[in-house]
Amino acid sequence: MAHTEYGYLTPENLALFTDLYELTMMQGYYNQNHNPTATFDLFFRDLPPNRGYMVAAGLEQAIHYIETLSFGERVIEYLTEHGFDEEFLSHLETLEFTGDVRALPEGTPVFSNEPLVEVTAPILQGQLLETIVINQIGYQSLIATKAARMRDMITQHGDEQSLVDFGSRRAHGSDAGIKAARAAYIGGFDGTSNVAAGEAFGIPIYGTMAHSWIQSFTSERAAFETFVDEYGEESILLIDTYDTVSGAKTARAVAEEKDIDIAGVRLDSGDLTALSKEVNEILAETDLFISSGIDEFKIRRFLTNGGVGSGFGPGTALVTSTDAPKVEGVYKLVAVEEDGDMQPSMKLSTGKVTYPGAKSVRRVERDGQYDRDILALRDEDCDGGEQLVSVIEDGELVYQFPDLPAIQERARRSVSKTPPAIRQLEDPERYDVQIGSGLDTQTTSLRRQLESQHS
Amino acid sequence: MAHTEYGYLTPENLALFTDLYELTMMQGYYNQNHNPTATFDLFFRDLPPNRGYMVAAGLEQAIHYIETLSFGERVIEYLTEHGFDEEFLSHLETLEFTGDVRALPEGTPVFSNEPLVEVTAPILQGQLLETIVINQIGYQSLIATKAARMRDMITQHGDEQSLVDFGSRRAHGSDAGIKAARAAYIGGFDGTSNVAAGEAFGIPIYGTMAHSWIQSFTSERAAFETFVDEYGEESILLIDTYDTVSGAKTARAVAEEKDIDIAGVRLDSGDLTALSKEVNEILAETDLFISSGIDEFKIRRFLTNGGVGSGFGPGTALVTSTDAPKVEGVYKLVAVEEDGDMQPSMKLSTGKVTYPGAKSVRRVERDGQYDRDILALRDEDCDGGEQLVSVIEDGELVYQFPDLPAIQERARRSVSKTPPAIRQLEDPERYDVQIGSGLDTQTTSLRRQLESQHS
Repeated sequence: MAHTEYGYLTPENLALFTDLYELTMMQGYYNQNHNPTATFDLFFRDLPPNRGYMVAAGLEQAIHYIETLSFGERVIEYLTEHGFDEEFLSHLETLEFTGDVRALPEGTPVFSNEPLVEVTAPILQGQLLETIVINQIGYQSLIATKAARMRDMITQHGDEQSLVDFGSRRAHGSDAGIKAARAAYIGGFDGTSNVAAGEAFGIPIYGTMAHSWIQSFTSERAAFETFVDEYGEESILLIDTYDTVSGAKTARAVAEEKDIDIAGVRLDSGDLTALSKEVNEILAETDLFISSGIDEFKIRRFLTNGGVGSGFGPGTALVTSTDAPKVEGVYKLVAVEEDGDMQPSMKLSTGKVTYPGAKSVRRVERDGQYDRDILALRDEDCDGGEQLVSVIEDGELVYQFPDLPAIQERARRSVSKTPPAIRQLEDPERYDVQIGSGLDTQTTSLRRQLESQHS
Repeated sequence: MAHTEYGYLTPENLALFTDLYELTMMQGYYNQNHNPTATFDLFFRDLPPNRGYMVAAGLEQAIHYIETLSFGERVIEYLTEHGFDEEFLSHLETLEFTGDVRALPEGTPVFSNEPLVEVTAPILQGQLLETIVINQIGYQSLIATKAARMRDMITQHGDEQSLVDFGSRRAHGSDAGIKAARAAYIGGFDGTSNVAAGEAFGIPIYGTMAHSWIQSFTSERAAFETFVDEYGEESILLIDTYDTVSGAKTARAVAEEKDIDIAGVRLDSGDLTALSKEVNEILAETDLFISSGIDEFKIRRFLTNGGVGSGFGPGTALVTSTDAPKVEGVYKLVAVEEDGDMQPSMKLSTGKVTYPGAKSVRRVERDGQYDRDILALRDEDCDGGEQLVSVIEDGELVYQFPDLPAIQERARRSVSKTPPAIRQLEDPERYDVQIGSGLDTQTTSLRRQLESQHS
């Protein structure tokens, strides 16, 4: 019964990337003829440790799922085997999304409790989106944020070192490898080593050489010579297979012998700051790329201590967001149709707040910096510019997705407008997200009403 | 240029899931007519913090990549645009793996420096596999280990609670969602909520209901009644949308009204231990599933403090292995053909040891427990049973992949043979991996030789 060939997600099984309970509930809504319009919010209740802001990312893939949603033959066959009703499955075969989606554009800083995506649709449709939308937006936002921290650290030092994602191999599976490249680009990276991501998203791809290239020749010198014979001035030589300083000298000797300027050398181990200075003495005109366990903290240390480098290649720490590997995105029902009107809705589960009703995210600036946000009811009168944009209306895409460089530009500009205290690598201050008075009143009164019903 | 539709990996772009430098090196090997046979080892230099063992997993997907490897039209077109040579690309179009693979069977405990996979092939072929093989085996091993820790904790308490993966939404992308379900099953889980994983791997799928189901009705009672009308005795009701104890009473009332035994209730928030006892007072005959931030530490606390539950649904902590979200698998060249003979090879990069040569992993048992391993040269005479098995010979699959229940059984049996001190959740003792005297001598003499060449 196991389909080895289906170990990856393809258009044929994409609709199955969902939790069983979504389908179970959908069948219940359908069979019980209970399909009110509902509004769901995707948001982060709390930001991960040491995160004063998150950079929203992943919207385009979430919307792609909604737009291309299709329950094909293979999916229906599996669900039939698992006991779903024929009539319900016939309904799925023709299912198309007919609702509305509003969202924060990718590259926008987002804070606690603010909806990144708001879906309003018949509940049967809105329910289905939960799993994949949290999955795609949560992960890309996590990585775009990690990347933005690295770019910000370089900018704060007045530097412009390049940043290239080298993390594919250590990402959590193949989709993470590809999506990390995209999210890192949004957060301010220059490119990726992942060729599939390059092809999928038009991201610049970069690469150097591995230790295995060096080892496969009888000497490091022969390895360098052969690579330079092949790639000439584009060559980037890995100099630390045996001894970094000796490797740097060999790289110089080969460049002199061939009478060319090589593009650069790469350093992948040891005391990076000290070695970078030594290498720079030997190869003053040659770019030096650093790729050993790089994260925003190591970049800070390197730059603060006067390390000399022209680029960094973060890997594992970037793609797993090692210091904060999770962000617990939730997708909660906040309003539901009753007798033709949308009524606010919330759950009370211990220690978890959900603000009811369709909302507005307002951002107030002062002196060119973000001063505070106001999370308000959708039509509430309050200060600040609305951050949510309309993406899908009545099932039709009405949003023009910006290209990735434009999203990166948005992220750079908006991260720079986020106050430095919020952007600190450790113990950032908490950004002020105020609750609009209308939303506050609605939350309090609904809570009171529900508590009195259930105590 | 960006292909939005290609945001997921499919058979058409799978070959591109690699780092650019692999392809650059491959072209260099090809054009420079340098394609010696090489042996690469995939291993973990260090285990993650608080891990005394790792459970090997992901081999079947890694081998699937090797077996189905194909550079089709779309891939060739992209590589052409990126300046690769026509002749090299023609070579790729007909490329098939012709080498040998030996590996640790999935479900086997693995320790520092032991090869999980050993590839011997023309270097051009062997080089390509690095990225995807580390990616798939690293991630699944990480999650199988996390899962095994949870199963082990339950077993140590003499219990048999069920474990179901509820993590899809918080996994790092869609592939992680699917592969986590598989790896968790290997590590001792009973099933997953991920429908795509169920279909792909024949894993049992489970689900309950979400808070949104409850909220979409005018009362919790109406929500329960409608669900029970639809699913009868299979119903598992979520009782903590408003108030857990009140929810449990409502569930009981609905079951009495309908005169059926419901399958269970689920608890997703609050003080789990205390609430589980209260709920058990109300619904003594009903299974209670616990799904709030579950990991092995929370399971231990729950069981130690007398919590009453019949199953756990770990999510985020499982699929991101939150307490140890990375394992730095490496894929290193350990031997290379020279004048027709395989010569051991190693790099010396600061602080990183690689043992040269094709190897043997021997496991020595004493009194039914693992006593020590010996990492030795392949043909070295030493104690213990060989752990590596032959998977591919001369490009042909010679290994019969066990089905998932058999792999799970192997993992359970072998984890139970791993000494308790190695299995501790915190600060485990380090398992004894000895270096065989032949390998030790070879390592020392090769190191000395390389150091004298490069100082």
